[in-house]
Amino acid sequence: MSAISIKKSITLPLDALRGLVADDLNKVDEIIFELIRSKASLIPEISGHTIASGGKRLRPMLTLACAKMCGYEGVAHIDLAASVEFIHTATILHDDVVDKSELRRGSLTANNLWGNKESILVGDFLLGKAFELMGSAASLEVYRVLSKAALVISEGEVKQLALTGRVDVSEDEYFEVIGAKTAELFSAACAIGGIIAGSSDLQIDALALYGMSLGNAFQIVDDALDYSVSDKKLGKNIGDDFREKKVTLPIIIAYNQATAKQRKFWDSAFSPGAPYSDEMFQNAVALIKDGGVIEQTIEVAEKMITTASHSLQIFPESNIRQTLLDVLEFVVVRKF
Amino acid sequence: MSAISIKKSITLPLDALRGLVADDLNKVDEIIFELIRSKASLIPEISGHTIASGGKRLRPMLTLACAKMCGYEGVAHIDLAASVEFIHTATILHDDVVDKSELRRGSLTANNLWGNKESILVGDFLLGKAFELMGSAASLEVYRVLSKAALVISEGEVKQLALTGRVDVSEDEYFEVIGAKTAELFSAACAIGGIIAGSSDLQIDALALYGMSLGNAFQIVDDALDYSVSDKKLGKNIGDDFREKKVTLPIIIAYNQATAKQRKFWDSAFSPGAPYSDEMFQNAVALIKDGGVIEQTIEVAEKMITTASHSLQIFPESNIRQTLLDVLEFVVVRKF
Repeated sequence: MSAISIKKSITLPLDALRGLVADDLNKVDEIIFELIRSKASLIPEISGHTIASGGKRLRPMLTLACAKMCGYEGVAHIDLAASVEFIHTATILHDDVVDKSELRRGSLTANNLWGNKESILVGDFLLGKAFELMGSAASLEVYRVLSKAALVISEGEVKQLALTGRVDVSEDEYFEVIGAKTAELFSAACAIGGIIAGSSDLQIDALALYGMSLGNAFQIVDDALDYSVSDKKLGKNIGDDFREKKVTLPIIIAYNQATAKQRKFWDSAFSPGAPYSDEMFQNAVALIKDGGVIEQTIEVAEKMITTASHSLQIFPESNIRQTLLDVLEFVVVRKF
Repeated sequence: MSAISIKKSITLPLDALRGLVADDLNKVDEIIFELIRSKASLIPEISGHTIASGGKRLRPMLTLACAKMCGYEGVAHIDLAASVEFIHTATILHDDVVDKSELRRGSLTANNLWGNKESILVGDFLLGKAFELMGSAASLEVYRVLSKAALVISEGEVKQLALTGRVDVSEDEYFEVIGAKTAELFSAACAIGGIIAGSSDLQIDALALYGMSLGNAFQIVDDALDYSVSDKKLGKNIGDDFREKKVTLPIIIAYNQATAKQRKFWDSAFSPGAPYSDEMFQNAVALIKDGGVIEQTIEVAEKMITTASHSLQIFPESNIRQTLLDVLEFVVVRKF
């Protein structure tokens, strides 16, 4: 254990996770870039760009790591990890069209570079490809879990759209949306690792809970960062959510504790059609800072992390389990 | 057999097919309208509207009829037929956004009524729902066939998009697009009926070929109708393809036999950015009529129909088989 502790202190947990599954992750990347060599030339361009700028490959790494932790010795986890990444990428493509986003993680979005219709169609293609890849596991349960994730993600996006124009979103409504849009795929990505390994139902449920809690925490922290990070390292436009009038947990907390005057500000800032101004955003950031909103938001994420951490306790100690636990901490402390 | 012949003369083949699977089709409709009762209120509105205006339910009827012809006695064909209809509806929703269509079969399109982002997201939801419904068959082969169809459809749409701006599309390119966009789902809809019935590989392949040829013929006739029908019974805007600069078989045939002067007209009519005018459309219709293009187009469809007809010969004679054969004739003669 001391070796792990030393390693932990000098390596970021995400790098440690990447290191543990490096060989498999390379194979996932090969499959991704092999499969997007479609005859239709827009497909490799758009999906290559979106996957390349898609960031950390956290979801496929979770599939690989969970399969490994459960003792899986086959090869289907590679295709499944690629499938998970394709579902995620398809979601990004459609989401950016729906939200009219221009930047994601510092890169121009596909809809910005190629156009809306191209993004819609390549998103559809990647989702189709994801379902094709699922076949490698030859497991009805894998199909069931990943299909459900794809369904729940899309339902979450429709729910989010239906909340547009309201600032008085409740915490329950918020958790419904992020649970569907983000956490469900994290959960599925973890669970399928156990399913293909032939793990017990209890272990599969534990993996699903780990992924669900991690995904929720991840999204909550992301939403907090949108009002708190001063540098551009994250690559995301700070203030995007405010500009798009997306009501996230920091806003819900700030609104609930607002004075009558402050509430008036939030009402007008998030009213449909209200123009965005930097001044309004700075005012929002100031209210959030003065009200200790970021701290309260992170507290919520920390509770999720505790749940995720407990859920892994049923697995025997191992290097991988420790790394999956370390990743939890990283999610909450990143960039603060 | 004489009873069938008499029936055939008084009933349209599509009505006969509908009559044969009426009980099952009612159950499919129940499932469709049950499942779209999502908590997210846009989903029932948009999908209900799109499915209701989606026309003939030909694809789910094929699944039901093929399962029945193969002696299937379970209940999974109902969910699978609904799944096929959901894949089709999702495609329509995304296609209408991509093509900026305003009308479909005489009804306002969903993107016209609710907006693009709503259509994108509800399309995603319906595709997710389709994959959930596939689970009822508990068959990896069903998942494989329907996943492939969803993938190929999206690939076909990307291919079609890549052809934009070119009038010198080849017949091969055209068949690649319609094979992917239309025929693949017809083929899958038929094949899965045999798969769940435990039919032989030969029979399943025959069903797939029947569906593929029928789907191709169906699309070719649809494309011919866009330049030839004078009334509005079809509910589709005549001239839509011309207005959207979609190069279909009639145009390919007309272009290949055009004089130098005519070719100049086609080049300018289909050049990117060229404005649409009724005069140009009337000129196109006149060239197509004078050149016997519709007849040549229908001849191509008739060859497909012959293939489809032969593929059903390996099945024993039955009322259902006869109806599936009659449907073939109907596809070619409708509205001419």
